[in-house]
Amino acid sequence: MEFREVLIILKDDLNKLEASIKENFQSDVLLIPTISNYLSNGGKRIRPILLLTSSRLCGYNNGNKHITYSCVVEFIHTATLLHDDVLDEAEIRRGNPAANLRWGNGASVLVGDFLLSRSLTMMAEVKDPRIIFYFSDASRRMVEGEVMEMINPFNLNITEEEYIGIIKRKTASLISASCRVGAILGKSLSTEEDRLSNFGTEVGIAFQLVDDVFDYASEETKIGKEIGKDIRKGKVTLPLIHLYNNASQKDRKLIEDIVKTGDIQREDFNKIVDLMKRYHSIDYTMDKARGYIREAKERMSNFKGSLYLNAIFSVADYIVERDM
Amino acid sequence: MEFREVLIILKDDLNKLEASIKENFQSDVLLIPTISNYLSNGGKRIRPILLLTSSRLCGYNNGNKHITYSCVVEFIHTATLLHDDVLDEAEIRRGNPAANLRWGNGASVLVGDFLLSRSLTMMAEVKDPRIIFYFSDASRRMVEGEVMEMINPFNLNITEEEYIGIIKRKTASLISASCRVGAILGKSLSTEEDRLSNFGTEVGIAFQLVDDVFDYASEETKIGKEIGKDIRKGKVTLPLIHLYNNASQKDRKLIEDIVKTGDIQREDFNKIVDLMKRYHSIDYTMDKARGYIREAKERMSNFKGSLYLNAIFSVADYIVERDM
Repeated sequence: MEFREVLIILKDDLNKLEASIKENFQSDVLLIPTISNYLSNGGKRIRPILLLTSSRLCGYNNGNKHITYSCVVEFIHTATLLHDDVLDEAEIRRGNPAANLRWGNGASVLVGDFLLSRSLTMMAEVKDPRIIFYFSDASRRMVEGEVMEMINPFNLNITEEEYIGIIKRKTASLISASCRVGAILGKSLSTEEDRLSNFGTEVGIAFQLVDDVFDYASEETKIGKEIGKDIRKGKVTLPLIHLYNNASQKDRKLIEDIVKTGDIQREDFNKIVDLMKRYHSIDYTMDKARGYIREAKERMSNFKGSLYLNAIFSVADYIVERDM
Repeated sequence: MEFREVLIILKDDLNKLEASIKENFQSDVLLIPTISNYLSNGGKRIRPILLLTSSRLCGYNNGNKHITYSCVVEFIHTATLLHDDVLDEAEIRRGNPAANLRWGNGASVLVGDFLLSRSLTMMAEVKDPRIIFYFSDASRRMVEGEVMEMINPFNLNITEEEYIGIIKRKTASLISASCRVGAILGKSLSTEEDRLSNFGTEVGIAFQLVDDVFDYASEETKIGKEIGKDIRKGKVTLPLIHLYNNASQKDRKLIEDIVKTGDIQREDFNKIVDLMKRYHSIDYTMDKARGYIREAKERMSNFKGSLYLNAIFSVADYIVERDM
């Protein structure tokens, strides 16, 4: 199944989701819906799509809780983007100038907080403490992952294993929770719930690895954000870890010198990209990502074949094959 | 009853609260407990004290949920402080250099988010969706109040009524929720719950008005934060609103000129303070605050006299009579 077919299968749900997003960021304080709306456009809705597909796969077919929780997870994610932009001093987000540049750090922090509190009132209204627990625990782990990344900038000595541990928290925990919540809605057995949660973790790690690749090997117009940002901000991601660990003594020295400056210019960035081509660091990272997707899918062998199993596999494939 | 006697009555609960605070901000990412601990010291714990007293007043005497929710409300409050410091570019907080100056804006945003997600997992574990709703709704209203304040800086034309509307959201909503949650724990009638919630709203408004006064008429060493910050950051609070509305044409012009510069120096600040003395703007604001406390207490006449009624009245009095 193609990813665009998944969007067709979920069309009704996704339309309801867009309506729910718009409805739930309303406030008489008009800057809040303005910024929320600005940010909301251009989102790929990967987390909601996984939640919706997972709920359908597990037999949920009665009610609109899957829409509510899809909106919740998109709000949590959007809040993270707003707060990250303050951390990263981002300039472009989802193809537009980042909100912090347009309205200031204060607005980004506060509107992020608004979306978090709104996601919480929505969950409180549905009254499922287990789901609240999983989403809040995922939020906690996301924050931990981001702090881990922040406190160790420009650290070329990080191991691949440590790095995977960080992105497991930073990116995969919310994606994993999205899949689990879908399973909870479908009243799955706890083994199925865990299976979908692990599926989400692996898909989430792959998602981040592909994002890491985009930051070195992409065109800005395509991905809707600046490239070369990670290394400039001191984020040492898998392509760079691989490069550094595999480069010759001389090239390692060059990488160290570039990273050490702390203010990396375009020319130096291009040198790094060239080295990554020479040492196949991009290919290595993409292979890793594809490996996680493969494992994720193998894990699902106990689910019997169905339209929605094909759909969730298609989402997983899309995550490594997308071009933005 | 004196406020220090309230602290004695609540001594066991407050000790448990401190232990709960320390326990719940733990993380293997050590910067998180470091910053949380740094921020946590020096807090007056007004919101937890109101929650604890309110729960005891309503007959809650069995279990430790009041401790959990006191910790939750203190975490929500501390998260707000961390995020506010990013907005305000604060330099001093709770008597120490603000966390954003010491660890950067990123750390303040993230540790705030950590405390929010932690408060949420704690609530999810106790499983009372109504309480989750009230705390998250209060968080939403706090954010709305802060955005309202932020988008209209240096606005001398704000009315007193509009200003009270803003601080009702920004400050009073969480204090009101604290009192309501205490009542919910005591399995109060809904009329009693509403009464305590309104009590909290009025106490909260008074609390903010007294804070507003401190920013003009206090010594920095006493209140543990810079003075003159509000006007420098463009926050037009009640003392200034009163002054501007009551000053002579010539003095109004002076105030406008000072506020308009956007970069208010000590000398100009002192001129404003002198004018406030002349026009009794500080007295006016303190009278307003005392009026709210009086109303708050009158509202409680249906509760029969008890140790805890005296205690909660003492907390209310302390809020306007405190010297920090």
